[in-house]
Amino acid sequence: MAVITIIGAGMMGSAMSIPARDNGHQVRLVGTHLDTEIINALQETGMHPKLRRTLPEQIQYYPIDGVETALLGAELVICGVSSFGVEWFGSQMLPKIPQGVPLLSITKGLELLPSHTLRPFPEVFEHMLPSDRGISCNAVGGPCTSYELADRHQTHVVYCGRDIAILQRIRALMQTPYYHISLSTDITGVEIAVALKNAYALGVSLAIGLAEQSEGIGCVPHYNAQAALFSQSVREMCGLLALLGGKPENICYGAGDLYVTIFGGRTRLLGTLLGRGLSFPKAMQELSGVTLESVAIASRIAQAVRTMAAKGQTNLNAYPLLIHIDEIINGDAQVNIPWEKFTINA
Amino acid sequence: MAVITIIGAGMMGSAMSIPARDNGHQVRLVGTHLDTEIINALQETGMHPKLRRTLPEQIQYYPIDGVETALLGAELVICGVSSFGVEWFGSQMLPKIPQGVPLLSITKGLELLPSHTLRPFPEVFEHMLPSDRGISCNAVGGPCTSYELADRHQTHVVYCGRDIAILQRIRALMQTPYYHISLSTDITGVEIAVALKNAYALGVSLAIGLAEQSEGIGCVPHYNAQAALFSQSVREMCGLLALLGGKPENICYGAGDLYVTIFGGRTRLLGTLLGRGLSFPKAMQELSGVTLESVAIASRIAQAVRTMAAKGQTNLNAYPLLIHIDEIINGDAQVNIPWEKFTINA
Repeated sequence: MAVITIIGAGMMGSAMSIPARDNGHQVRLVGTHLDTEIINALQETGMHPKLRRTLPEQIQYYPIDGVETALLGAELVICGVSSFGVEWFGSQMLPKIPQGVPLLSITKGLELLPSHTLRPFPEVFEHMLPSDRGISCNAVGGPCTSYELADRHQTHVVYCGRDIAILQRIRALMQTPYYHISLSTDITGVEIAVALKNAYALGVSLAIGLAEQSEGIGCVPHYNAQAALFSQSVREMCGLLALLGGKPENICYGAGDLYVTIFGGRTRLLGTLLGRGLSFPKAMQELSGVTLESVAIASRIAQAVRTMAAKGQTNLNAYPLLIHIDEIINGDAQVNIPWEKFTINA
Repeated sequence: MAVITIIGAGMMGSAMSIPARDNGHQVRLVGTHLDTEIINALQETGMHPKLRRTLPEQIQYYPIDGVETALLGAELVICGVSSFGVEWFGSQMLPKIPQGVPLLSITKGLELLPSHTLRPFPEVFEHMLPSDRGISCNAVGGPCTSYELADRHQTHVVYCGRDIAILQRIRALMQTPYYHISLSTDITGVEIAVALKNAYALGVSLAIGLAEQSEGIGCVPHYNAQAALFSQSVREMCGLLALLGGKPENICYGAGDLYVTIFGGRTRLLGTLLGRGLSFPKAMQELSGVTLESVAIASRIAQAVRTMAAKGQTNLNAYPLLIHIDEIINGDAQVNIPWEKFTINA
């Protein structure tokens, strides 16, 4: 049995404690400075107030100033912060991880470099580490909601990283009869696929709101329109995987993750509000102004693609849905799906 | 304005009359021997009893023995029969189509030849035609429910056929501001993609029933499991497209069509019943014994893949979900999703 230290007590970071505990590991869950209430509640009651689940017994909870203690003897460190916490994690936490201990990050996504190229988060962490630390940076992709992982529902994810032997070691620690893990050394491909689904889940959700705009909130969904947007999302995701250097087979993770993301959460709500006719600032007000990962990621990818198009490396006509999403988010455009631009002759 | 003759007054054949009429064409809808009640109702009230929609005015309705009259002067013939009517349509209707008039078939799928190879329906029709008839056989793929087409919801389909100029002519007849049409000369790729979605929609729906088996009918869906099956479906569909000779980009039609098929209809119901623990014969009883296209297609594709595997042309381990579906349908197996077989190292 190993010591597994999870830094970040949000919903997904905390849910990762469940397969880890089910495998008998010693699990230490460290709250960031944003997680104080969560850690207090967990210490008092064992109930995670956001996940609304009682975590397994014998998990040890730490506030952020206990992180050094929590890392002593760890065989695996799980980074449980969202993409907005990556900078903090990289600068404040990475230096504390003991030599040679592998990192598994649940943070999905890509950073936009000043050159307007994209860098997957595991590589962002690598760039923040001195090369002699021997810390392998790995990440989780694939469709997984924290609630359902916490409920031990059947789940299939993919762990990506450079070293297949390390990935196999991490899988051996984490896999359970309900938590199934594929492995991939195509970090770029996995991270692009799972980042893209955030952007395109927003795109598909527009159809929910558009239907409600014409037929009233709560109307029967328009599946043809949703499916047309889903098809177009898959087409553009395949194109972007190729453009950005990921292997084509990662589309399966992107499509599965897109499927699950459309069913719930704030990305769906934002797409729905925009589809109903709200401007982006108004829709964000309804969401209490919290910036969504999907918005950040859609903007970053669109910026990278626009830069590549300006250099003649691609043609924006291949991504009409992404460009329309970007125009809505960053260009004050009203929703007006360019359906006819989706048609092709092949 | 052209004369467009639709043979087969089922839901999708009849729904095709709507974009055709909206473009001002003269539309003739011919009922097969199975459509007598539908044609009678349409002639009396204009209301389609299965589609539950009033069709546009000025459509001319014909019983099957009026088909020769209905075909006089037609510029496009639409075949509106299901895959179970293909043999009948090929032998009884094809010979009546005037020289040089193109055919557009809404029938999706593949025939299994005695050699256990698959043939897409447009090619099945070609093989039934003397080569000097000059009849181009084309087909519709992509996600489209008949109800929503009839309601003029935004819809994106793909027409496939050998001759891009003919496809463009058909598109010009049928496209409307809500009915968007891509074109493809990759008949095999389009037909495989849209046939596969039938088989895999059954596979994804198993998760609905499995959740209900453990938590009760109507429980909150298990999206992680559905998404894992969706991911696996996309992976296997990509593999089967390559194996069976379709271009990889057709996965977008397959994935979009899979997305919409999961939401409703009898394939979802069958998958749900099987997931709840009913045997295949019991589940078919609940469905009043009507054979579903999804069952027929899953069986055919599995048979073709098993034959190719026996010849060393592929490995069944690449299609664990398809093989499990086939075992349930044709091998009396209970549902027992091989989750761990879905994991890969790449």
